[in-house]
Amino acid sequence: MQSQIVLYTREQSPFCHRVHMALEEAQAEFSSVIIDLANKPAWFLEKVNPIGKIPAMAYGHSFGSPEDPSPDSTKPAESLVLVLFVGDLFPYSGLVPTDPALRARALLFAVNFEARVLDAYKGFFGGGAPPRTLLDAFAAVQARLPPAGFAVETWSFADIMTAPLLVRMVLLLEHEMGTFAAGEGKKTLAALKEPGFARLMEYIENLKARP
Amino acid sequence: MQSQIVLYTREQSPFCHRVHMALEEAQAEFSSVIIDLANKPAWFLEKVNPIGKIPAMAYGHSFGSPEDPSPDSTKPAESLVLVLFVGDLFPYSGLVPTDPALRARALLFAVNFEARVLDAYKGFFGGGAPPRTLLDAFAAVQARLPPAGFAVETWSFADIMTAPLLVRMVLLLEHEMGTFAAGEGKKTLAALKEPGFARLMEYIENLKARP
Repeated sequence: MQSQIVLYTREQSPFCHRVHMALEEAQAEFSSVIIDLANKPAWFLEKVNPIGKIPAMAYGHSFGSPEDPSPDSTKPAESLVLVLFVGDLFPYSGLVPTDPALRARALLFAVNFEARVLDAYKGFFGGGAPPRTLLDAFAAVQARLPPAGFAVETWSFADIMTAPLLVRMVLLLEHEMGTFAAGEGKKTLAALKEPGFARLMEYIENLKARP
Repeated sequence: MQSQIVLYTREQSPFCHRVHMALEEAQAEFSSVIIDLANKPAWFLEKVNPIGKIPAMAYGHSFGSPEDPSPDSTKPAESLVLVLFVGDLFPYSGLVPTDPALRARALLFAVNFEARVLDAYKGFFGGGAPPRTLLDAFAAVQARLPPAGFAVETWSFADIMTAPLLVRMVLLLEHEMGTFAAGEGKKTLAALKEPGFARLMEYIENLKARP
């Protein structure tokens, strides 16, 4: 089967990083097109993702240029959908666990992570929310972790959903990047280094250690 | 494999209806336990779902009583996770398309539906939002529908995600049930019966016609 994957993406987006990670884990061949969010091309809205969000994908047997994918190609979007799609296209990647129960646990972890962390991330780094908002979200993620290993012990797509955001947040805190008052980043990071967050920080180290 | 499914549920919840529908489609054997949301039992929070939301499930080989599931059993929650889990447990149910591209389209439809419709549903029926909020969400759903058939033409879990809410909303409008001013329900329903919403209403009829 000759098939093609085009990823519509941009640099610096943790949501796009998720899909890049999944494609790399699956050793998938793909091409990518950088979309300028400040100046979205009309063809992108018309022919790829009417919502205009990235990451997005065109997948199909023949679709000419990335700017003009065939109407018959599949155009999935949303990072969770894309990461699962890559896992389903490349079942031997191990991205999607074959055991239905483990798969459900991984999906629940990912869904809870989105529900709990995304607002806190935007709130603390860009919206003036207090450090407590972020720490509470981190505590909720930690409470869901098993005693050892990754999100469902063995590595899975759930870890691809969390890694780019968790690693990025630690870096942003370290470098005091955000709308919070100077010093708040390092103070929040110090709180994360307390024993109460040991399991979460171990998890983040596990994520970073994976090639 | 001897396995057991316990569904923690309540009547009148479209989110629980989704999981009931999936279990019935799969002809799965299961028992159910009604959870009183106004008076949640301590064991439910402790042993089933720490977030306290329903629907939730306990799935495992042996877990004694529904009030005391084994710590080894899997306890998925969130209606999307549960519907997909049932589809994965019973692959011959046809709930989850076997073609990865079709599966991704169904998941994208379901994810977009949640993102677009849930807030509008709560806003219009319980939060004082104007009819336009609901009609815009319906228009967004309709724009995603293929020219004929179900959410991805053939029937799938995506339709289980939409059916309980769409059918319920039409009924609520018809019977003027909600915090909106008297008459607004029927007026909004009349707007849905205009030609501009013909495809959406046809889809809702397709959903109702499925046994």
